[in-house]
Amino acid sequence: MLNKLEKIQQHLKDNNLDFAYISNPNNIGYITGFYSDPHERVLALFIFADTIPLLFAPSLDVNDAKASGWEFDINGYTDSQEPFEVITELLKARTSDVSSILIEKDHLIVERFLAIQAAFPDAEFANGTDLLNRMRVIKTADEIAIMKEAAELADYAIQIGVNEIAEGKTELEIIAKIEYELKKKGVTEMSFSTMVLTGINAASPHGNPGLTKIQKGDLVLFDLGVMHKGYASDISRTVAFGSITKEQEKIYNTVLKAQLTAMNTVKAGVAAKTIDLAARQTIADAGYGDYFPHRLGHGLGITCHEFPSITDNNELLLEENMVFTIEPGIYVPNIAGVRIEDDVVVTKDGVISLTQYPKELQIIQ
Amino acid sequence: MLNKLEKIQQHLKDNNLDFAYISNPNNIGYITGFYSDPHERVLALFIFADTIPLLFAPSLDVNDAKASGWEFDINGYTDSQEPFEVITELLKARTSDVSSILIEKDHLIVERFLAIQAAFPDAEFANGTDLLNRMRVIKTADEIAIMKEAAELADYAIQIGVNEIAEGKTELEIIAKIEYELKKKGVTEMSFSTMVLTGINAASPHGNPGLTKIQKGDLVLFDLGVMHKGYASDISRTVAFGSITKEQEKIYNTVLKAQLTAMNTVKAGVAAKTIDLAARQTIADAGYGDYFPHRLGHGLGITCHEFPSITDNNELLLEENMVFTIEPGIYVPNIAGVRIEDDVVVTKDGVISLTQYPKELQIIQ
Repeated sequence: MLNKLEKIQQHLKDNNLDFAYISNPNNIGYITGFYSDPHERVLALFIFADTIPLLFAPSLDVNDAKASGWEFDINGYTDSQEPFEVITELLKARTSDVSSILIEKDHLIVERFLAIQAAFPDAEFANGTDLLNRMRVIKTADEIAIMKEAAELADYAIQIGVNEIAEGKTELEIIAKIEYELKKKGVTEMSFSTMVLTGINAASPHGNPGLTKIQKGDLVLFDLGVMHKGYASDISRTVAFGSITKEQEKIYNTVLKAQLTAMNTVKAGVAAKTIDLAARQTIADAGYGDYFPHRLGHGLGITCHEFPSITDNNELLLEENMVFTIEPGIYVPNIAGVRIEDDVVVTKDGVISLTQYPKELQIIQ
Repeated sequence: MLNKLEKIQQHLKDNNLDFAYISNPNNIGYITGFYSDPHERVLALFIFADTIPLLFAPSLDVNDAKASGWEFDINGYTDSQEPFEVITELLKARTSDVSSILIEKDHLIVERFLAIQAAFPDAEFANGTDLLNRMRVIKTADEIAIMKEAAELADYAIQIGVNEIAEGKTELEIIAKIEYELKKKGVTEMSFSTMVLTGINAASPHGNPGLTKIQKGDLVLFDLGVMHKGYASDISRTVAFGSITKEQEKIYNTVLKAQLTAMNTVKAGVAAKTIDLAARQTIADAGYGDYFPHRLGHGLGITCHEFPSITDNNELLLEENMVFTIEPGIYVPNIAGVRIEDDVVVTKDGVISLTQYPKELQIIQ
């Protein structure tokens, strides 16, 4: 914990910043160990270049914050207090002559930005998003071990779902079974809303599951993940129920080839765009270039969608122990929707896949 | 749909605002009918005082946006484009001499605020939060009918959970059963993470369910809700498993009295703080004033936590057809946690409760 704080303090010193106002609850959790969703209430972490940090939380969360192991100051505020009045007083007691403040420009909302600006009208604002992103994307061995467990639970969830496929079952019944079995294993939270989409529903990349019944000849698309010890997993698999058409099979095998091509392109030192383009070219070569409308993948860690974005123009060089998803897809309206997704760790020479559920076309009879 | 747009256009005209940049996906859904979570991508609705509105969405969502019934312009952008470059071009083609822009200061993030400020460096920014909040909090008869259905599903969920209580069952097993049965009824999403807390776990107002087993003598606290046709419900009930102590019973009956007192205080024209204070006084009179650390309730609608906040200093006058929760609680560490919560509609002379599960102390044997 001290190491993360020290890194941020070093960054403040190196850049002549007086303090950091961390507003993103995920970053606060990452730094302090106290993970909490404050809803519309104010949760804030103030880290100073040259004095001890201060956690500011709704009063009803203060006991939980203390119990989480945070060893520095905590101040609470009640629902009847104006939080930025309290914050301003606390900050002014701790620091003076503030000329520059680090904020997360991708998270802080305008009303809180204006409140902190009103408290320090002469201050300039630097962006801490990149600093936090780059700290979070490189995983330690401990983090990777936890993410491997999270991925194993995702594999298990796919197996439950595939076993549950049967004529006339609805998408929601399959989801209910998956989440029921996961909860019995102690999973308290999915990393996002579980998706099971069958037949033409799967052809929308952001489709919503409902009461559509699985029928023979359908491709069934699963996209799901769990939260496990504070880390997310995210897997997609698509399986056939009964025999499918030649075109559906071609789409499936094109996605698989694109996914494997992208996997084989990953290693430390390669640009993120290179792996996106490798998959994109494979899909374009098969004639489906217009039907892969999204990026190849996204970073994964204490949240399910984070830095970096694996797009066709991201010059970011991959580094060892970065973790992200690789998930090409093809969605042809009224024909088929297929996506195959793994969670991968970048290594010096290649890639390790955390998710392990088989990817060859599986036909459920 | 036109009426909501027209209201906002009227507000723009009345306040000499050139356009509104709506960034909150819930407000975009409320206005357009297109509900979508864009994650870190940009979804934006631009409403102009004197020309037709423009919806701006990630390209992979454009088809869904069209299918949702939005009849005006939609522009998409791909993951390789810089969204605010595209937005700036679109806005400048549609409007000139921009002097003031409506934004949601409680939602817009600093980086997007700075991007729109860079595009229109001379513009001032007005806050649209209050306008949208006040539109959303007053429900139509159609909205109330849907919310009544959402509340009935919440009542049903409590019944499932109560029926499932048995010696040695874990909190997560109960949650799994509740959500499994709801999914079979077509519920695709809970309105927040379902909470079942037993014994001393319930004494933390924001506790997390886990593998703790229910034992005789426990108070079991349920807090849950569903999303139904785009609207949230939110209910809390606490029941006893086996015989409980006199003090636990006193705590339960104090919360119940506070909840009923608050319900009886509601009617159009009363200030929000009056009902919070009515409950708070009842709890203080019983000697538990220090153990009710949160506000009485919160607005409810297309999200689970919204305007207004029912606190002890909110002067807002209640109006007919406002919907919010009433949920006093007492949490005494190592003794008991009790919360009782209903979703209510303000009427001219009083209140209608949407949730109907019984509130008298229920002892499960």
